[in-house]
Amino acid sequence: MKYGFSHRVRYMKSSAVRDILKVVNKGDVISFAGGMPDENLFPVDAIQGAFNKAITSGNKALQYGETEGVFELREQLADRMAKKGINRHPDNILVTSGSQQAIDLFARVMFNPGDIVLTENPTYLAAIQVFESYETNIVAVDSDDDGMIEEDLEEKIVRLKPKCIYVVPTYSNPGGKVWSLERRKTLLALAKKYHVVIFEDDPYGDIKFDKASSPPSIASMDDNKIVLYTSTFSKTVVPAMRIGWIVGPHQIIRIMAQAKQATDLHTNSISQHALIHLINDFDLDGHIQSLRNTYLERMHVMKDLLEQVKSDDLSYIVPKGGMFFWVNMPKFVNTGELLKTAVDEGVAFVPGAPFYVSNPQQNTMRLNFTNASPEQIKIGMERLVSVINANQYESVMQ
Amino acid sequence: MKYGFSHRVRYMKSSAVRDILKVVNKGDVISFAGGMPDENLFPVDAIQGAFNKAITSGNKALQYGETEGVFELREQLADRMAKKGINRHPDNILVTSGSQQAIDLFARVMFNPGDIVLTENPTYLAAIQVFESYETNIVAVDSDDDGMIEEDLEEKIVRLKPKCIYVVPTYSNPGGKVWSLERRKTLLALAKKYHVVIFEDDPYGDIKFDKASSPPSIASMDDNKIVLYTSTFSKTVVPAMRIGWIVGPHQIIRIMAQAKQATDLHTNSISQHALIHLINDFDLDGHIQSLRNTYLERMHVMKDLLEQVKSDDLSYIVPKGGMFFWVNMPKFVNTGELLKTAVDEGVAFVPGAPFYVSNPQQNTMRLNFTNASPEQIKIGMERLVSVINANQYESVMQ
Repeated sequence: MKYGFSHRVRYMKSSAVRDILKVVNKGDVISFAGGMPDENLFPVDAIQGAFNKAITSGNKALQYGETEGVFELREQLADRMAKKGINRHPDNILVTSGSQQAIDLFARVMFNPGDIVLTENPTYLAAIQVFESYETNIVAVDSDDDGMIEEDLEEKIVRLKPKCIYVVPTYSNPGGKVWSLERRKTLLALAKKYHVVIFEDDPYGDIKFDKASSPPSIASMDDNKIVLYTSTFSKTVVPAMRIGWIVGPHQIIRIMAQAKQATDLHTNSISQHALIHLINDFDLDGHIQSLRNTYLERMHVMKDLLEQVKSDDLSYIVPKGGMFFWVNMPKFVNTGELLKTAVDEGVAFVPGAPFYVSNPQQNTMRLNFTNASPEQIKIGMERLVSVINANQYESVMQ
Repeated sequence: MKYGFSHRVRYMKSSAVRDILKVVNKGDVISFAGGMPDENLFPVDAIQGAFNKAITSGNKALQYGETEGVFELREQLADRMAKKGINRHPDNILVTSGSQQAIDLFARVMFNPGDIVLTENPTYLAAIQVFESYETNIVAVDSDDDGMIEEDLEEKIVRLKPKCIYVVPTYSNPGGKVWSLERRKTLLALAKKYHVVIFEDDPYGDIKFDKASSPPSIASMDDNKIVLYTSTFSKTVVPAMRIGWIVGPHQIIRIMAQAKQATDLHTNSISQHALIHLINDFDLDGHIQSLRNTYLERMHVMKDLLEQVKSDDLSYIVPKGGMFFWVNMPKFVNTGELLKTAVDEGVAFVPGAPFYVSNPQQNTMRLNFTNASPEQIKIGMERLVSVINANQYESVMQ
């Protein structure tokens, strides 16, 4: 039988990353492809204790719950954000099934087909996926290492009248960038001037390597009028819980909660209650600090090996946080092609092209350094370096 | 600031049930409003054991997982469904964040604005909510106690060319009906004849009171061509886990999985792994049998008190399963108005009108008998009976 699907199905793509992960999980391939934390670093004992408390501390926790999220968790989130200068009432917070759902619910209540979204280029793959599924037009703003460039941003706001500007300003995925304070202020000022909502996606803000403080979030400079800010516990506690949150103007959050009601009623509340206990009983900030140290060390292992192939043609930024190296290869390289050879040699990465909104650069790749151990990173990078070198040799021979 | 929301926001409604629940949770009100199981009957020890195993049996369970759901759980679901005559491969199953998400994802991949969905009238409130949010036109098919009536169903299929027929044929919400075998066969035959997908929503099938077997599900009579079938563990284990599933033609399930990827990546996998252990280690079917016995007893307590107000003008079907009495009050009664008095007197129910797709009957109400204890049901129903009697007296005096 032929089924009549909705038009939006045409705009739905499977994530390149997740498709690669399916292949990579088989066999002896060392993967730098996913955006996954290292499961060996999960605080299993603390999680077990938290779930035990959640399950045995009264059966109400196992019953249907409020769509907005368990209030006590929202209070804790408000406290934690306040420490970072984002002062918001718990009523302005919606607990979501991962921050991915925050992006989806936002898109659901905001976008009509044809609406414009401005983004960086490259940007977070699964945000592109969501925006495209709502039939929006995604337009890239010219950016450099400090963030979006004012002139191009203003010109595009004025000309295109976007509904939203989506940014990952802190340890961006995939680029690993940190926006400067000045660029953050400029973005906020322009958004206010022209009444455009900013969606600040911050899954990696806690994974910082710099001793110096990173620039404040854009949300912390807003009076809760124009910035939606989302983050997650997937990178700092465990992904399997699927707990994220979003904070922003009450009017938008309220309507997103209504959309969530129809979508999945509410987020898994055993996990929400467990998280409440975890935050109360466990030194989560100490745990995050130890993750930073471990991931910083791994970043250095990867960097040391990348240096072997560094050249005028092969460049990367040394990340100040987050989970990724973003590598620009020589122009003639197609990393999609290179991946096949790499997987044969036992190493995987994500080709950069799918992260682009326009002008996909086929010579880019994203390398994750948090999921593999330092030993694996070393072996995997040696394999990758030899694949890169062989590729360069081949190209010279052609 | 004024925010520019999407058009679909206009079609999004908050659920009347959830809004009532918010009021009812305060104070000494006995509520027959929700569709909730009794939290005192939750198998807490077994759940605790299952979560402990899930959390300590390898950190992979705490990592990102497959969008389709943990394969072992899908195998168990296939086994459990096979026992009910629904023979499907695990690859045709998608694990969802509650069966609510199954409805939403289905709607997302199937419906364009203006598409027609045929339903019973009244039908499940939150399904109406979802279908309306995708700007479909929902059209009611004439039904009696045995299900949809063939002539009206065929006439509407031919004339309106619906994309889907949504039904809750077993212990329906809110009506408490069970479709006859004949009507199930007729629906399937017509759907096949005219190539219309059937969405069979079966959250209550396991809560059966009859010793005799209930008619087979519509899915069990299909060769996986035309029926999507969804169910949930919310009623039989705990709602807080938010685990449901949907099974159907591979082509549709595959595209729904793609939609889910963008929506929330995957369902909470700690809960999925816990459920695997629960199904392996715990006598879930024995637990379900004991729920049936307990809920049957409560249904009888409610029935005995309803009989005090039964008349030619006030009728109800004695449910053969599920969680609800559906009461038809005298024509002059507006149950929305009656609810205010009832809450003042310490008892709540859901007015029937929001469950209607068209021609809302203001004189109907839904009463849940699973959440309150027999003693509470008695007190609550005595309150409700006196509210109903006072209302009848008032109307006579007017």
